[in-house]
Amino acid sequence: MRIALGIEYQGGAYRGWQRQSHVPSVQHEIELALEKILRHEVEVTCAGRTDAGVNATGQIVHFDTDVERPLKAYHRGMNTLLPHDIAITWAQPVSDDFHARFSAFSRRYRYIIYNNALRPGLLNSGLTHCFQDLDAELMHEAAQALVGEHDFTSFRASLCQSKSPFRTVQKVSVERQGRFIVVDIQANAFLHHMVRNIVGSLLLIGQKLEPVDWMAHLLTLKDRTKAAATAKPNGLYLVKVFYPEQFAIPDIPVGPLFLAD
Amino acid sequence: MRIALGIEYQGGAYRGWQRQSHVPSVQHEIELALEKILRHEVEVTCAGRTDAGVNATGQIVHFDTDVERPLKAYHRGMNTLLPHDIAITWAQPVSDDFHARFSAFSRRYRYIIYNNALRPGLLNSGLTHCFQDLDAELMHEAAQALVGEHDFTSFRASLCQSKSPFRTVQKVSVERQGRFIVVDIQANAFLHHMVRNIVGSLLLIGQKLEPVDWMAHLLTLKDRTKAAATAKPNGLYLVKVFYPEQFAIPDIPVGPLFLAD
Repeated sequence: MRIALGIEYQGGAYRGWQRQSHVPSVQHEIELALEKILRHEVEVTCAGRTDAGVNATGQIVHFDTDVERPLKAYHRGMNTLLPHDIAITWAQPVSDDFHARFSAFSRRYRYIIYNNALRPGLLNSGLTHCFQDLDAELMHEAAQALVGEHDFTSFRASLCQSKSPFRTVQKVSVERQGRFIVVDIQANAFLHHMVRNIVGSLLLIGQKLEPVDWMAHLLTLKDRTKAAATAKPNGLYLVKVFYPEQFAIPDIPVGPLFLAD
Repeated sequence: MRIALGIEYQGGAYRGWQRQSHVPSVQHEIELALEKILRHEVEVTCAGRTDAGVNATGQIVHFDTDVERPLKAYHRGMNTLLPHDIAITWAQPVSDDFHARFSAFSRRYRYIIYNNALRPGLLNSGLTHCFQDLDAELMHEAAQALVGEHDFTSFRASLCQSKSPFRTVQKVSVERQGRFIVVDIQANAFLHHMVRNIVGSLLLIGQKLEPVDWMAHLLTLKDRTKAAATAKPNGLYLVKVFYPEQFAIPDIPVGPLFLAD
């Protein structure tokens, strides 16, 4: 039997999603809790392996078990076992051909910038602080150059293991909400560090240190060294993963927190 | 010279505002940082002494010093010295007759309920989770009975040291924002645990375990034992303190986080 879980987490205390020896990871916490419920070893497969410090409201995993447990063991039960900064948001059985990573056809991330002269006292590990004034409209306009299928080499980490540098950005927006700037980006898939590298460059455009057409120009250069530094992980949230309707994956609010869809 | 500071904090790691021996407090952290900047002992006076686990976006303090420091030492400088869950939001000189507590004529609190079947993975120490479905409109209607000057004995902690149980609630609202319910209440001053005791009873009305007119009835009873249990500190934020205009205290967004004013 295959089970899928929705997971929300604050990544600040973890060295990323993926289980590694001797360092805390979200995957390890999930598997530890599951093993207490299932009483057998289990390995979960996730939709997107988030990096150290990155957060999620819409991470999804699947795993297989022959043990029968009521569904509430996988949400209410798990939530009593997990640390306070990781929570299961839903659990349901899925067909055997559902794969959290390979069945997904799109991913959506939000990047939250706290744009204020002084740093925040709340949610420090879930916001990226920028004290320079940012023009969100310029950032939005610049980001539109990313829409469509492009070679994203300029925004790809040198360690990226993907065979192809091509990805299709379906939509992207940059919007100010009071002191916050929300970058919202959806693509068929993302290269390693792609969102954080895009945000790094948008931050320079927002400060008017680079022109609005810089994003389009960077795409044509296909050279990571020409774009800006990688933005910090704190503000990044994996908010939604899209699957074919046949799998009936729950549609929950994307957040984070009080942000509406 | 008298200086006033605006302070934002996540209270989860502290045993409240007030300095006590051998336990972490927000006041102690502020004074430690200030003493590094001023190089003399200092005691700060706050607008409202929040309890253990309670948060603030709009706490205000004043202190006196003869030492001359640039204002940025009190905000940017302090913020490099303070723990990540405490931040200075502004600093400015004030006249000697300004008193953070006694000059204030009103206080405003927000209480944030995460109303969802499952607990959150984000901001756990800054939200109160309620898994039962709440009707925010009933809660709002019920809360209107609190407006005006009343004897709030039914919502007053037994340890409260105030001489009078009378307070004047200027406005109160309860509003749903997606999965969140925001209780927003402003009064000339509050008794000990008054907001949390009010919220505790509103939670029963929201679950339809008590009728809408229960708040009005509780007020007339003047009996703490008849009202509901005290709601948890996690969801409570001191968001604003009001002073006469002559003091020119900065008007900043109340939050918390993405919540608009």
